Amino acid sequence: MVPIMPPRLRLRLHFGDVLMLGPGKADLLAQIGATGSISAAGRALGMSYKRAWSLVEEMNAGFRAPLVLSTRGGPGGGGAQLTETGEEVLRHFRALEALVLRDPGGDLAAIAALLAEPQLAGDDRSQPAPVDPGRPI
Amino acid sequence: MVPIMPPRLRLRLHFGDVLMLGPGKADLLAQIGATGSISAAGRALGMSYKRAWSLVEEMNAGFRAPLVLSTRGGPGGGGAQLTETGEEVLRHFRALEALVLRDPGGDLAAIAALLAEPQLAGDDRSQPAPVDPGRPI
Repeated sequence: MVPIMPPRLRLRLHFGDVLMLGPGKADLLAQIGATGSISAAGRALGMSYKRAWSLVEEMNAGFRAPLVLSTRGGPGGGGAQLTETGEEVLRHFRALEALVLRDPGGDLAAIAALLAEPQLAGDDRSQPAPVDPGRPI
Repeated sequence: MVPIMPPRLRLRLHFGDVLMLGPGKADLLAQIGATGSISAAGRALGMSYKRAWSLVEEMNAGFRAPLVLSTRGGPGGGGAQLTETGEEVLRHFRALEALVLRDPGGDLAAIAALLAEPQLAGDDRSQPAPVDPGRPI
């Protein structure tokens, strides 16, 4: 049995024609929660300030209540935080990702078991074989 | 309670750095199974012949056994069919998509319930209201 790298997952949900919720927005919400700043969150994700703001605005408009509250400028230099709705949306999105990776039906494992061996990239065999000290070189 | 369009889903699995399996390849497999032809399958998906072939080759190389068997030319003009492995991979991929939409944890429903009403695009309210025949026009 060769070690199999856990697959990485990208899940993207489209609600109607307007709102898409995928890994980019989820990561942005998580980073805003972690950094307290939209610009810091964007930087952490290699995203321009403008792009990060535009995604936040899109999400805030797409939900019944804003996901992110922000203050621009001010004595503290401005900041941002997730609202309760923002935390809830992020939590549910992560739960859906986790559901697929938990693989209750064994479907992910079945696909992985059918992969060609060279596709098991990232396992130890892609590294040079360790030198056996007992073997003459 | 307004009707909520079921969300559409895009699921993309990355195995190591090499193989990606997403909706495009899954739909291509399904169309090859349905049409018996890589070019017809590509056409049905608005995909160039070259692109369809390249995805098939990528999948055939990425799995332990080919997913698609094809004969180029010949008296019947060539054709293609899914192998048992191809059918298996497609079935497991569809099962993962269905798992998310079945939403056992209620996470998808929870996100949908937080959407702003204008985001419920595609429901009946986006259609012109049916004319009430009993009402003078």
